[in-house]
Amino acid sequence: MKNETLFKLSYGMYAIGVRNEEKVSACIVNTVFQVTNTPNTLAVSMNHDNYSHECIKKTGLFTVSVLSEDTPGTVIGALGFTSGRDTDKLVNIRHRVLEEGLPVIKENCCCWFLCRVINCAETPTHTVFIGEVIAGSDVAKGEPMTYDYYHKVIKGSAPKNAPTYQEPPRQSNEAESWVCTVCGYVYNDPDVPFEELPDDWVCPICGMSKSAFKRK
Amino acid sequence: MKNETLFKLSYGMYAIGVRNEEKVSACIVNTVFQVTNTPNTLAVSMNHDNYSHECIKKTGLFTVSVLSEDTPGTVIGALGFTSGRDTDKLVNIRHRVLEEGLPVIKENCCCWFLCRVINCAETPTHTVFIGEVIAGSDVAKGEPMTYDYYHKVIKGSAPKNAPTYQEPPRQSNEAESWVCTVCGYVYNDPDVPFEELPDDWVCPICGMSKSAFKRK
Repeated sequence: MKNETLFKLSYGMYAIGVRNEEKVSACIVNTVFQVTNTPNTLAVSMNHDNYSHECIKKTGLFTVSVLSEDTPGTVIGALGFTSGRDTDKLVNIRHRVLEEGLPVIKENCCCWFLCRVINCAETPTHTVFIGEVIAGSDVAKGEPMTYDYYHKVIKGSAPKNAPTYQEPPRQSNEAESWVCTVCGYVYNDPDVPFEELPDDWVCPICGMSKSAFKRK
Repeated sequence: MKNETLFKLSYGMYAIGVRNEEKVSACIVNTVFQVTNTPNTLAVSMNHDNYSHECIKKTGLFTVSVLSEDTPGTVIGALGFTSGRDTDKLVNIRHRVLEEGLPVIKENCCCWFLCRVINCAETPTHTVFIGEVIAGSDVAKGEPMTYDYYHKVIKGSAPKNAPTYQEPPRQSNEAESWVCTVCGYVYNDPDVPFEELPDDWVCPICGMSKSAFKRK
């Protein structure tokens, strides 16, 4: 079996919101599904090393914000490719803090759910948290972003802790490819060589400067 | 919160293959995600009342066939809207039985995985089975069908045991709508009144005859 076959599974794109004492944080996942509707219950897979994992274990609460197709790559990069242990990931992202102290995304968000963990299942690297939906937005708007859209249209990649992470395939025109050392985004536009990009150009996924890129 | 907000979660469409002694069966689900890649592990949510649930509990094995966009509604209907307890659901569907005795779909299938249950998490109505991928197809082909595509293009609905089932909304042109009592498919083509459909017309989802339809 080739690992690429697993790319045929379909997903959405979600921001998981958490809190730790008074601090809020969030991360990006694609692995969310509804377990049952009696009562409404969601499941999410999360890496043991993630700061969000530690927060959910501590509080037993998480939010799910369903990202819409118009979410910029920089929002996904800010939440998906740095750790909430080191930085305030939400500082530049419009969000609302619920009464329970957890954040939900305000912009580019179809709807949100607040979940209380009722069960979980362990694997060697990830926990599947099962959370009953205890609150949610009254309306849903916009077209939800699929993981496929994120890859094909936004040209995004998966962080190493993601359940669906795979080593990026080698490009055929290697001389032209530059890879972001933070998020793995590969720049290989045949029309504009990397060296000719303006100095203030930043990675469209994680916002790092040109100096974070290395030639492949 | 309105239940419709949960429709913004994105899914694929999958046939879950099972065996019970020498008998094979399968059902349709949308709720599958990858939990981790070390080793490759999938999760699936399944109703306690489903025959497939009973088989997985007994054997600790299941297959996941990723359905492609060209899967006819009748295949989904045959696997999704009858019970394997009463019928041989695979009798008219091309499939292959693996060495381990479990079926995978041969036609309209992007790829398949064989999983051994390593853990599970319970809710009042559904079990989330966590299965390590112990075998899979070498190649993946075709465009995977999304749950959104199934609803919008194939006009399919969810069976009552599905985690994402919701009561169908009332149609405004109720006099024109006929609903299939087996699968819930709603016929309301304004160009062809239901009464004028030929006698051998069958439900495009579950294959039942006109007599299985009731006016809404």
